[in-house]
Amino acid sequence: MSSASAIYLVEGVLLVAIQEDISDTDILDLQEALSERVVDEAARAVVMDISALEIVDTFVGRILAQLASVSKLLDAQTYVVGMRPAVAMTLVELGMDLPESKTALSLTHALKDLRGESRG
Amino acid sequence: MSSASAIYLVEGVLLVAIQEDISDTDILDLQEALSERVVDEAARAVVMDISALEIVDTFVGRILAQLASVSKLLDAQTYVVGMRPAVAMTLVELGMDLPESKTALSLTHALKDLRGESRG
Repeated sequence: MSSASAIYLVEGVLLVAIQEDISDTDILDLQEALSERVVDEAARAVVMDISALEIVDTFVGRILAQLASVSKLLDAQTYVVGMRPAVAMTLVELGMDLPESKTALSLTHALKDLRGESRG
Repeated sequence: MSSASAIYLVEGVLLVAIQEDISDTDILDLQEALSERVVDEAARAVVMDISALEIVDTFVGRILAQLASVSKLLDAQTYVVGMRPAVAMTLVELGMDLPESKTALSLTHALKDLRGESRG
């Protein structure tokens, strides 16, 4: 896997920043690496930062949805943070509304939600 | 039924460990035996440990989903524990995300969830 998609563990939460120029192969590797880390670290959540993504196509949209479904099966909640308005619009137009993911404005909001705190 | 899939009762919860080499016939027998035990023991939950499964096909995936649906109709919550990352990815790729099952990392996590305790 390229270093472009390093996975960090913070408070039992796996953080992944998806890079703008992530290739289809990289994102498949990421899917595999991430699901293994969820089990190895007994992670309670996965936070995917997609703020670097300016556009999204059906392939990336489907992988994002699959990542969330796989994490759910492995008992981890997925948060997608940093989604750009254009990406949100494209996902809706493509009929991909990421049903298994929670979305949060930022990592801070996602971590607050995980701690059960209200948005402040 | 082969002894490979013995069913244990702990605190009103039925535990089943699915063996790696479980045959299609065995898993059908298990489905029948399990649903009978759920009623006989008035079990409140079924915990299926699938950590021995390294791969899963559509048949096994469908039976896992059916076991959960049957248990739900019999008023028992199903937990799937010990799922390997590769199995989770295959299930998602096959479009089988086990909607009626809760997944948990381990038996300990499933029992904690049943007792209403948060993950510690």
